[in-house]
Amino acid sequence: MSNEVYLGIDLGGTRIRAGRFDADLEMEARTETLTLDEEGVDAVIERMIEQVKAVYPSDGRVAGIGISAPGPIDPVAGVITSPPNLKNWVDVPLRQRIQEAVNVPVYLGNDANLAALAEADHGAGRGYRNLIYLTISTGIGAGVITEGRLLIGTRGLGAECGHLLMFFEGERVSTLEQEASGTAIGRQARVALVNGEASQMLEMVEGDIMQVTAKHVVLAAQAGDAVALRLLERAGRIVGCGIVSLLHTFNPNIVIIGGGVAEGAGDMLFGPMQKAIRQYALSADYWENLKIAPAALGEDVCLIGAAALALHRGE
Amino acid sequence: MSNEVYLGIDLGGTRIRAGRFDADLEMEARTETLTLDEEGVDAVIERMIEQVKAVYPSDGRVAGIGISAPGPIDPVAGVITSPPNLKNWVDVPLRQRIQEAVNVPVYLGNDANLAALAEADHGAGRGYRNLIYLTISTGIGAGVITEGRLLIGTRGLGAECGHLLMFFEGERVSTLEQEASGTAIGRQARVALVNGEASQMLEMVEGDIMQVTAKHVVLAAQAGDAVALRLLERAGRIVGCGIVSLLHTFNPNIVIIGGGVAEGAGDMLFGPMQKAIRQYALSADYWENLKIAPAALGEDVCLIGAAALALHRGE
Repeated sequence: MSNEVYLGIDLGGTRIRAGRFDADLEMEARTETLTLDEEGVDAVIERMIEQVKAVYPSDGRVAGIGISAPGPIDPVAGVITSPPNLKNWVDVPLRQRIQEAVNVPVYLGNDANLAALAEADHGAGRGYRNLIYLTISTGIGAGVITEGRLLIGTRGLGAECGHLLMFFEGERVSTLEQEASGTAIGRQARVALVNGEASQMLEMVEGDIMQVTAKHVVLAAQAGDAVALRLLERAGRIVGCGIVSLLHTFNPNIVIIGGGVAEGAGDMLFGPMQKAIRQYALSADYWENLKIAPAALGEDVCLIGAAALALHRGE
Repeated sequence: MSNEVYLGIDLGGTRIRAGRFDADLEMEARTETLTLDEEGVDAVIERMIEQVKAVYPSDGRVAGIGISAPGPIDPVAGVITSPPNLKNWVDVPLRQRIQEAVNVPVYLGNDANLAALAEADHGAGRGYRNLIYLTISTGIGAGVITEGRLLIGTRGLGAECGHLLMFFEGERVSTLEQEASGTAIGRQARVALVNGEASQMLEMVEGDIMQVTAKHVVLAAQAGDAVALRLLERAGRIVGCGIVSLLHTFNPNIVIIGGGVAEGAGDMLFGPMQKAIRQYALSADYWENLKIAPAALGEDVCLIGAAALALHRGE
């Protein structure tokens, strides 16, 4: 079985990537093009098929193809439902469309779930059977592996841990993502500036407060800006509390954290996060042997995960 | 295999139950005695072994024995750690102690997890592969079945969904259990009465506010008491929000709710709970085909679950 070949496709909002992998998930070939969603669904699917052909092995033998796509998707039916960063896509039967073109088993998974699979098989989570993967960027995505298996739930809508409900102020209910994602941190910074708080961020955008994003918060915090540091500390604490809920729920042996905000903020986020974990976990049993690791795979994480999906489903 | 025999033991704070089951989990014999924890761990274990002998089959053939015990426990090591309602038990290797006495494979599980297993195999969850079980009584316990398998995590400490963290006013960190369990509802009622709110509950306890418990809240709410109804509505809404987090995390096809508070409060709790689920779930996909059912098995639920554990582990 070790000479089987698997293809991965990563359909992102801006880029389509495709790769050819061996059964150890080593990449043998890779290609990439722009998504150009504005040209319409059919044109994007055509480009996906072209990318697949570009990495197809010369002997024509492929054991399976995995596709990573931004959620929400229905992985069981193989349908892209209506992702916020693919504006023209509503209930597109992508798996079927690709399968008709290539006549090979095709599988569809959401990007964060497949990133978890990639990290478990080939990245920071190798050798761990109970793994939580969190990506903190514009939003907060997640993937969960329990006893070595990807958790997706009845209709494939599970592991949406960015949508843990957490906050109750009066009647307001909020989620982990709504409080601690890059989008949330940027919004909180703009509110602080509008309220007249003194911060370097104001100069970074030449006084145009509405231009402030999480990137400015991270940059300002690196320069010691008190407002920016306070916002990252709060986000880290909230992420830590979200992780505590996940520790109580899954009792994992590793938590892997990726995404641009986590990478940029580093210890300014990880410090308060770790502190919250120790403060709020039910007992030290949940964290004393827990590994917390940054994601090891870079921009190809979803591509590798897509191939891993095809490999696991073919088992 | 269908003539295999399994035994279940339910070690509770007040009672020890034991039962003999066939491979379809039909109960063939049952016995029960008092735990009498105050007599010490060894005496309780002796009584457990006596109960096992009382239901032992005459031909002496038993395929496996399951034990249900209150958490926290270490099901992997078979050790009772330090449950709040078994005061003398600290790191007791119960599985080993029973196994030495009977020379049959013995398995240990926590009570809420085994209740979930029992409901899945033999109760309200039959035929469902992705199941959440919540018990709302003094505390809030939980069990989770994903793809037909009991979720326990690395060290068996998972599925503690009563300990989902939630934030309340002023960034105060609290948990589902600390806000919506019977203990919490009783405490909230006492606070309301101390604050001078007018309620029938005051007469029920002849003015002795500190005697008020969740039972009085349920009774008063049934009689239309506004304070009691408000407390149950809040608890129902918070349980609903906790369930939303679990729907996003597990995408189950059934949620089963048991426990004395849930049974007593009925629709006064279930109504606001259902409303919160519809209001806060990410999309209707999470709840439109979701079954929400009361627990079907009565006081023997953990006994049946213990036998189910032995049956599954023996598979």
